[in-house]
Amino acid sequence: MEIREALEADFEQIWRIFHSVVVAGETYAYAPDTSKEEAYELWLRQPQKTYVAVEGDTVLGTYYLKQNQLGLGSHVSNCGYMVAESARGKGVAAALCEHSQAMAKRYGYKAMQYNFVVSTNEVAVNLWKKLGYEIAGRLPKAFRHSKLGLVDALVMYKWLGD
Amino acid sequence: MEIREALEADFEQIWRIFHSVVVAGETYAYAPDTSKEEAYELWLRQPQKTYVAVEGDTVLGTYYLKQNQLGLGSHVSNCGYMVAESARGKGVAAALCEHSQAMAKRYGYKAMQYNFVVSTNEVAVNLWKKLGYEIAGRLPKAFRHSKLGLVDALVMYKWLGD
Repeated sequence: MEIREALEADFEQIWRIFHSVVVAGETYAYAPDTSKEEAYELWLRQPQKTYVAVEGDTVLGTYYLKQNQLGLGSHVSNCGYMVAESARGKGVAAALCEHSQAMAKRYGYKAMQYNFVVSTNEVAVNLWKKLGYEIAGRLPKAFRHSKLGLVDALVMYKWLGD
Repeated sequence: MEIREALEADFEQIWRIFHSVVVAGETYAYAPDTSKEEAYELWLRQPQKTYVAVEGDTVLGTYYLKQNQLGLGSHVSNCGYMVAESARGKGVAAALCEHSQAMAKRYGYKAMQYNFVVSTNEVAVNLWKKLGYEIAGRLPKAFRHSKLGLVDALVMYKWLGD
């Protein structure tokens, strides 16, 4: 597995991953009917950088990196990660997260914040904890889960060093 | 004091308030050198609604209302408030906040979230607490205060009712 910057040619595979994650309505706030064009904007255009984990020609997972706040909060980064269903349980998310921390430091960020981790997504919450992120906040009933209804969302945060 | 939707003609006064708040670098993440054009985008264009508190022709304060997250988080609103220096201590912020909660409910929101309350801004933190917002999270050293250096930011949250 190699992690590199996403190319235009990766987008078809990124879209398939994005769409299947979002349609489920269990882990990301993006509307389940987010279009391919909107996904391109959200995942490849608006962020500062987008990366993919690949094995040969196959995209296993992807993440974006951007600043979380303007101006006087711009030293805190934000990332979002998605892994293809067929590639789960192989450490792809952990590898993407470690990579993202290194890239965030390279781009001068001092911390990383996840604004909206769905509290029922235990796999993610536990992985982020293991990788050094703390639960900095809990937003009661802030996420409309497709199966569970209103559930809490978590804010997670890691200081990356001065 | 009357609170009404902001008009184009209010922008000159809104800009004076915005600029003096932002230049201080003590309470908002907006870059201290945010331009008038950017301020117009941020305060009047991007939000769903913008309101002003006025006394005669004088704008005493202003707030914006928008959704805080996309799609499955779109039932949570977000607001930002600013009060003219000459109008502080008269209950303008409290009046704007009460008004914003009523408007948020009218537009179908179920909750309101403040993403980035500077922890050293005690007047604001105490006012939001008094008006029913809880500290839902604390972001260590997430704000670069112009005088104090890196200080914590708070996430505050209020459920507005079903």
